[in-house]
Amino acid sequence: MPNDPPSLDMDVWEFRRLGHQLIEQMAQALAAEHQEPVMQPASGQEILDLVDEDLPRHTTPPEQVLAQCSDPLLQFGRRNGHPRFFGYVCGSAEPVAILADALATAFNQNLTAWRSSPAAVEIERLVLRWLDQMVGFGGDGHGMLVSGGSAANLQALTCAVYQAQERASLPTGARHQLTLYLSKEAHLSMIKAARLLGLAEEHIRLVDVDDQRRLRIEDLRHKVAADLDAGLVPAAVCASAGTSNTGTIDGLDEIAEVATEFGLWYHIDGAYGAPAAMVPEYRWMARAFARADSLSLDPHKWLYAPLDSGCVLYRDASESQRAFALDSEYIAVTQTEARESFAFFNHGAELSRRFRALKIWATVKTHGVDRLTQAIAHNIELRRHLDDRIAGHPRLELLGSELSISCFRYRPAATLDNDALNAINRRILETLVAEGRVLMSPTTLDGRYALRVCIVNFRTRAHDINLLIDEVVRLGTSFSANLPA
Amino acid sequence: MPNDPPSLDMDVWEFRRLGHQLIEQMAQALAAEHQEPVMQPASGQEILDLVDEDLPRHTTPPEQVLAQCSDPLLQFGRRNGHPRFFGYVCGSAEPVAILADALATAFNQNLTAWRSSPAAVEIERLVLRWLDQMVGFGGDGHGMLVSGGSAANLQALTCAVYQAQERASLPTGARHQLTLYLSKEAHLSMIKAARLLGLAEEHIRLVDVDDQRRLRIEDLRHKVAADLDAGLVPAAVCASAGTSNTGTIDGLDEIAEVATEFGLWYHIDGAYGAPAAMVPEYRWMARAFARADSLSLDPHKWLYAPLDSGCVLYRDASESQRAFALDSEYIAVTQTEARESFAFFNHGAELSRRFRALKIWATVKTHGVDRLTQAIAHNIELRRHLDDRIAGHPRLELLGSELSISCFRYRPAATLDNDALNAINRRILETLVAEGRVLMSPTTLDGRYALRVCIVNFRTRAHDINLLIDEVVRLGTSFSANLPA
Repeated sequence: MPNDPPSLDMDVWEFRRLGHQLIEQMAQALAAEHQEPVMQPASGQEILDLVDEDLPRHTTPPEQVLAQCSDPLLQFGRRNGHPRFFGYVCGSAEPVAILADALATAFNQNLTAWRSSPAAVEIERLVLRWLDQMVGFGGDGHGMLVSGGSAANLQALTCAVYQAQERASLPTGARHQLTLYLSKEAHLSMIKAARLLGLAEEHIRLVDVDDQRRLRIEDLRHKVAADLDAGLVPAAVCASAGTSNTGTIDGLDEIAEVATEFGLWYHIDGAYGAPAAMVPEYRWMARAFARADSLSLDPHKWLYAPLDSGCVLYRDASESQRAFALDSEYIAVTQTEARESFAFFNHGAELSRRFRALKIWATVKTHGVDRLTQAIAHNIELRRHLDDRIAGHPRLELLGSELSISCFRYRPAATLDNDALNAINRRILETLVAEGRVLMSPTTLDGRYALRVCIVNFRTRAHDINLLIDEVVRLGTSFSANLPA
Repeated sequence: MPNDPPSLDMDVWEFRRLGHQLIEQMAQALAAEHQEPVMQPASGQEILDLVDEDLPRHTTPPEQVLAQCSDPLLQFGRRNGHPRFFGYVCGSAEPVAILADALATAFNQNLTAWRSSPAAVEIERLVLRWLDQMVGFGGDGHGMLVSGGSAANLQALTCAVYQAQERASLPTGARHQLTLYLSKEAHLSMIKAARLLGLAEEHIRLVDVDDQRRLRIEDLRHKVAADLDAGLVPAAVCASAGTSNTGTIDGLDEIAEVATEFGLWYHIDGAYGAPAAMVPEYRWMARAFARADSLSLDPHKWLYAPLDSGCVLYRDASESQRAFALDSEYIAVTQTEARESFAFFNHGAELSRRFRALKIWATVKTHGVDRLTQAIAHNIELRRHLDDRIAGHPRLELLGSELSISCFRYRPAATLDNDALNAINRRILETLVAEGRVLMSPTTLDGRYALRVCIVNFRTRAHDINLLIDEVVRLGTSFSANLPA
C-alpha cells in the first residue's frame, strides 16, 4: 500500500484560527476603501521587487503566507470601493456579498449542471429569475452568470450567429455573409466577440450616432437594407443601455422595431446600465428589454457585487441550446426539460463554473430591492448634482452625461484652442490621480479630452462630488494662472 | 444636494463580527468534506422548496442571510473534497487557498490591465511563471488564468485560427477552409471551441486512436496530407495530456513532429494532466510541452485550487496579441512592452477579470513544490494501488488506466453478455452513489459501461481505495447471487 505523503489538509481548529486572523485582514481591506490615496503611483519594478520570488520548493507556515497577501494589495491596489473612485465602470463590492462569496469558495461547488451541484444550481437559477424581474426582461430567468460583460456579449452574439445561420440555411462555418450592427459608441467587447466568432471585419457595421451619441435609426435601417440588397445576411443588432463612455442609452424601442422588421437578433448590452431600469425614471428601459432576444448585465458593476459576476439573459432556451449544446437532440426537449437534467453547459461556453450566484443572493436578500433601487437612484442623483455644479460654474463645461456618468472639462477664462484645452485637462486629471484624493479615468469626445466620472458606488456622497469639483477648479485655476485673460 | 439613502455599507466592527460567524460556517463546510453522504439524492422540487423565494423587497439582517447560506449547500451540495469523491475531474480545494481567495474577494481587484490593479497583476504574472516552470512549458509564463479548461482551450484555438489565417493570407471571416485535428478521445470543449470560432463542423477531424486510446499518428498525418491535397488549410492539432475518460496521454513528441512538419499550431490540452509533469515518472511530458504553442492546465483540478482557476500558457505573446488585441499596432511592440503597459485584455477574451491568482500563490507558497509534487505522485500511486487490487481480484476487470484515472468493471462468475455486464455495473454504480459512501461517475469504453475513478484529491488515502473495492465487490456479489455460476 502506498505510504501517506505529508498532508495538504488542515485541521478544522487550525482553519478556524487562521480564518479569524484572515477576517482581520479582510476588515483591513474594507477599512482601506476609505483611505487615501485611492491609488498610489508605482512602477512595475517597484512592485516586482515586492512580490517577485523564485518558485518555492519548501513549506512556509500558512499564517505567514496569508499575512504576506495584504501588503502589496494595500500598498499598490486600486481602491475600487473608495467613495471618490470614479474611474471606468467598476463596482464597489458590498460587504455582505464579500462574506457570502468566501463561503461559496469554501463549499467549492462546480456548477456545470444540476446533477453536479443541485443546491448551488437552484440558487443560481433563483438569482437569475430575480435579476430578470429586477430589470424587467421578462424571460423567466433563462441565462447564466458569467465572468463579465465580455463573456455575456460573446454568448449572446453566439446565439445570434447560430440563429442567423439557421434562418439563412447557411452551413456551419459559413459566417462570412453575416453582418452585425452596433453604434460607434458600443463597447469594444462586441467587436471582439464578433471577431472571435469569425465574422468578417468588414461586415461589422458601425452605425452613426446622433448628437446625443445614440445610434441613428435611419443609418441602421439604411445599412441593413443595403446589406440585404448586396445578398448578405444581417444577423444581429446590438443596442447599448448605457455606453461606457457617456452612459448613453440608445433608442431601445426604435431599434426593437427595426430588429422585428428585418428579423434580426436583438441584443441589448446593459452590462453597465441595465440595473437603472429598477429606478422609476428609467423603468421605460424595461419595456424595451422585454422585446430583446438577449440582455447583458453585470451585477459586479451597478449591483455592487464583487468580481466576478456578469450575467446574460436569453429569451428562448432553444436558441442558446442550439448555439452551445453539442448534442443537438437536446433542442427538441428543452422547454419540458426536467429540473434535474438542466445543464448550464448546454447554454454557454464554460463547463466548470464557479458558484457566482451566492454573493448576489446575499446582497439582494440583505438589502432588498427597494434599498438597492434607492442606492442606484442616488448614484443618478449624484450625477445630476455634478451636472448642476458644472452648469453653475463659469469655468466648467459639460460634454456628455447620462445615467451615472458625466464627462466635462475645465475651460480657462483665456481663449484656448482645443489642443491647449486638452493639455490642461490632461494635466488636471493626471495631477488629481497622482495626488490620490480622487480617481477619474479620461475619455475623448469628438476630439475633446474629457474628465469622466462614473458613479456605481454605494459609498459616494454629495460631499465627494463637491470635493471633486473643488479639486478640478483648484488645479484648473492654478494651471491657467499665467494665461492671458 | 441629494439626500443620503440608507447605506449599503457596513461598519468595520460589524464586518468583523459577521466575519467571525462566517468562519464558523466555512469551518463547517470544511468539516463536511469528511462527512457522508458524499452526495445526497434529491429532486429539483425538494431543493426548490428549500430555496425558492419571491424577489425580496425589504431588508433581512445580514447574520440571518449568511446563516441561511449553509443549509442548502450542506444538505444538497456535492462534497468534491471528500476523500471518496472520485467523480469527473474536480479538485479538492486546499484550505489555505480557500482563505486566500476570500481575501482576494475583499480586495476586489479588477485585473484588466496593469494600470488597473498593479499589485494583483504582478502576482498573477508571478503565478503564471511558477505554473510554467512547474510543468516545464518554458515560455516565461506568458498566458493568463481563466475560468477553466473550456476558456483555456478556446483562447488557445483562437490564436491558432488567427495564425492559420495569417499564414494562408485568408481574410478575416474566412474560416471555412480551416481544419482542426484532435483525437476521438479529446475533450468536448475543443469541439465546442472550434464551433464557436466558426470552423466548419465537417472540418473538425476526429483522428483515430490506438488500442491505448492515443491519437494514431499515421491517421493524423494521413488526414493532414489529404486536407492539404484538397486545398484546405490545416490550422492546428490538439493533443491530450490526460484525457478525461481514461487519463490517456497522446504521443506528445510524435505529434510535435507532425505539427512542425506541416506548420500547424500545436496545442496541448493538459487541463487535467499537465501537473503530473512535476512527478519524475511523467517529467517526460515537459519535453513535449516545451515544443507546444499553447498549453491548457487547470489549477482547480490537479493543483487542488478552489474554483475557478484554469490557465492557458502561450509560447509567443505576439500570437495572442494578434488574436485578441483590437488595436493591431500593439503587435509590433509586444516583446519590448513595459511592465506598466501590459494588459491581459490584449491576450484573452475577458476584460473584467477576477483576482484568480492569489489562491494559487498561497497554496504554492504554503506547501512548496516538493510537497505538491508528492501529493500528485501519491494520487498516481493510489491509482496504481487500485489497479493492483483490480488485477488481483478474479471478479474485477481493468478497462483503462493512466495518470490518476482508472476504469474497471465487475464481472460475475457467470458468463454474461455485454449488455448484462453493463446493467449490473450500472446498478453497482447507482447503488453506491445513492448509499453515499463513495462517488464515482460512469463512462463507456468501447460499449462497455465502466466504473471510473479519478483521484485529484489530497485527502484520499489507500484505505479509501480499499473501501471502494470492498463496496464494489459486495454489491457485485449481491447483484449476481442468483445468476448461474
